[in-house]
Amino acid sequence: MEFCSLIRKKRDGLALTKEELTFFANAAAKQSVPDYQLSAMLMAMYLRGLDARETADLTLAMAHSGDTADLSSIPGIKADKHSTGGVGDKTTLIVAPVAAACGLKIAKMSGRGLGHTGGTVDKLESIPGFQTALSAARFTQIVNETGLCVVGQSGDLCPADKTLYALRDVTETVSSIPLIASSIMSKKLAGGADCIVLDVKCGSGAFMQTLPEAKALARAMVDIGKRAGRKTAALITNMDAPLGKAVGNSNELIEAISVLRGEGPDDLREVALSLAAKLLETAGTGTAAQCRELAKGAIESGAALEKLCAMVSAQGGDAGYIKEPARFPAAKHSAVLNARESGYLMHMDAAAVGQVCVRLGAGRQKKGDPIDHTAGIYFYKKPGDPIRCGEAIAKLFCEQGERLEEAAAALDAAITFGKESPQKQPMVFDCVE
Amino acid sequence: MEFCSLIRKKRDGLALTKEELTFFANAAAKQSVPDYQLSAMLMAMYLRGLDARETADLTLAMAHSGDTADLSSIPGIKADKHSTGGVGDKTTLIVAPVAAACGLKIAKMSGRGLGHTGGTVDKLESIPGFQTALSAARFTQIVNETGLCVVGQSGDLCPADKTLYALRDVTETVSSIPLIASSIMSKKLAGGADCIVLDVKCGSGAFMQTLPEAKALARAMVDIGKRAGRKTAALITNMDAPLGKAVGNSNELIEAISVLRGEGPDDLREVALSLAAKLLETAGTGTAAQCRELAKGAIESGAALEKLCAMVSAQGGDAGYIKEPARFPAAKHSAVLNARESGYLMHMDAAAVGQVCVRLGAGRQKKGDPIDHTAGIYFYKKPGDPIRCGEAIAKLFCEQGERLEEAAAALDAAITFGKESPQKQPMVFDCVE
Repeated sequence: MEFCSLIRKKRDGLALTKEELTFFANAAAKQSVPDYQLSAMLMAMYLRGLDARETADLTLAMAHSGDTADLSSIPGIKADKHSTGGVGDKTTLIVAPVAAACGLKIAKMSGRGLGHTGGTVDKLESIPGFQTALSAARFTQIVNETGLCVVGQSGDLCPADKTLYALRDVTETVSSIPLIASSIMSKKLAGGADCIVLDVKCGSGAFMQTLPEAKALARAMVDIGKRAGRKTAALITNMDAPLGKAVGNSNELIEAISVLRGEGPDDLREVALSLAAKLLETAGTGTAAQCRELAKGAIESGAALEKLCAMVSAQGGDAGYIKEPARFPAAKHSAVLNARESGYLMHMDAAAVGQVCVRLGAGRQKKGDPIDHTAGIYFYKKPGDPIRCGEAIAKLFCEQGERLEEAAAALDAAITFGKESPQKQPMVFDCVE
Repeated sequence: MEFCSLIRKKRDGLALTKEELTFFANAAAKQSVPDYQLSAMLMAMYLRGLDARETADLTLAMAHSGDTADLSSIPGIKADKHSTGGVGDKTTLIVAPVAAACGLKIAKMSGRGLGHTGGTVDKLESIPGFQTALSAARFTQIVNETGLCVVGQSGDLCPADKTLYALRDVTETVSSIPLIASSIMSKKLAGGADCIVLDVKCGSGAFMQTLPEAKALARAMVDIGKRAGRKTAALITNMDAPLGKAVGNSNELIEAISVLRGEGPDDLREVALSLAAKLLETAGTGTAAQCRELAKGAIESGAALEKLCAMVSAQGGDAGYIKEPARFPAAKHSAVLNARESGYLMHMDAAAVGQVCVRLGAGRQKKGDPIDHTAGIYFYKKPGDPIRCGEAIAKLFCEQGERLEEAAAALDAAITFGKESPQKQPMVFDCVE
């Protein structure tokens, strides 16, 4: 197959065949076609688009361009939940144990934080001893014994995506719905789950800032999943402000534990419960109402928290931290941000909050940077709350005290005040299935 | 300036500023931006287009990305004629001496043949001793003394075009009117002429196969020339069959000489006279009718042939070959192609004829290949001519006799016959100015 003929077809707005898209994905994986040809193709795909069949074919080809997880030795329904990335999003730490407590098998590969969004693996590594790099055999064993296991991405997973993502990043071809959808879903398909629920974040802290964009991405990903024979659904959830009150690593884990204890902030509980219920429903556990009750019950009974403890122990962590979160070490330094006006907290730029956390040391500017698990922000106030001038809005934490002043100023700049209460937005905007 | 922001603008269909296009051209010239970013930009330009102002700004930036010819020490109007490339196109060898005989100054850099199209420099090098690599000072001196000089491209002319053309060639971004126009016109602008006439070939042997495409390219190039302050016009001429009866190198030069002697095939004379007249008219020499008479007169008086002889002598060649073309060495081997049917010669695929000449050794598959100056084809019959089965259509020549059989078969396949005379097409389709 001659790669130029593929570029020409897409350039002219024609659909590529499954064989042609497989050739493209394999060429990207093996880097057997020069970057300048791949990038010309990516720009043609960006501007000409890919239809649903092409997007699914490309995604499957990318999923099979490297290693794939073999979950066949795990009986039951293997379920996965994926978020498109937000700020303060610790829902996996709630949804996974809830779903496992309700009988699903969660064999999850998860990412690390990059840029303004955090990663579940980083949060779990706040627990002393917790291992996120396990052999495939041990991973399978833990899922079979406890019902859930969360590890970092390992092996040669989706090498086509690695090449294409790196090129897209430097050629202004990131913001294409079919390319984003295929990048995310190729990793989900390679991860091997039968049943996938996607949390498509929408708002100032999300990649998709408007509801139509978020719905289009959700639609594209659900279509891919179904065409690949996986039970797939998506919720579009609110990421206009950080989710919950804690942003960071250990403090997010602590907040997730509080939700598993039946406490925690309403917005976080609502999103986590909705996702857990949708995962159960998609897996065929029952009606939407039944699944919501089941999920709630798993929290109320303490079964979900037990599942988290079991997983943490199985992965080498000290489950005592889960039972007694006060044991997590506090950051050496902290500073309080006070309100500069009276009225209402109108808006909080979630992406900017994420960037402040990176400055504090809780996240990474680039892959491989070390992180400070204690660093982060705790919000006393959230958008919609009434506030008096001088009242505490948030507390910032970190190990390197010299970072606090600049971070507090940046956080202050990310917050707007108003005289009237802002209109309350729902936490779950829509469902695509 | 951050190159990604330029890609983003063009990707989103916005116009780039003069400064941005200059940055792009200089980045291509210096190769200071990676190829994969340049190719993403080229695909965005291909699909989003460039408006007339952008195309002119890009062309000027490319023209100034390297060396430019300084013709200021040549008094008078410096005129240039450029063809978009055809088969059997030896018009420069006629137009340049005619225009010089009428008082214009022709200080021309010309190309070598590549692929199925020939190059003026190769044809001139059929003359023993003829030099196409001259110092700038000698080039200027010859123009001042004789009125014309044709050399090969030298120095670091339009390095931006070199980079971009090589990338376009492997990323399916060649066939874009603004990119073709800027590539051609950047070299014309760098060549320094005040007055430019473009011969936009249209038909099976040309890059532009339809009249609307050819007109669009002509319009784009004329617009660039005018925006750059050069007097510019374009003729759209017929390249559905090879021009004239000779295709090759020395045989094309011989045919050009015959036209300068008032002989030669009608189609070639018509195109050459039209171009020469348009060049004189564009330079302000007189009305269209006056200029045509002037051009004809330069041939009839022998003044144009004298100009060619003077140029050949000045460039180190033996002008005796021009005066006595029978002195050109004949090829060692030849074969005659006879008609396989009776009726009319309907069509001759000009591009295929060009490829046959490459096989015979008259052209190059890739840059730097040596060529056989004696190789080529002479046509006894042209499209529209009545023909009897077994009658000679063409004679093929070359130094390497083993190439003849395959070449003759390929030439045969390029010719179609019919029972009725095909409709006669004009040689000059249109004028754009």
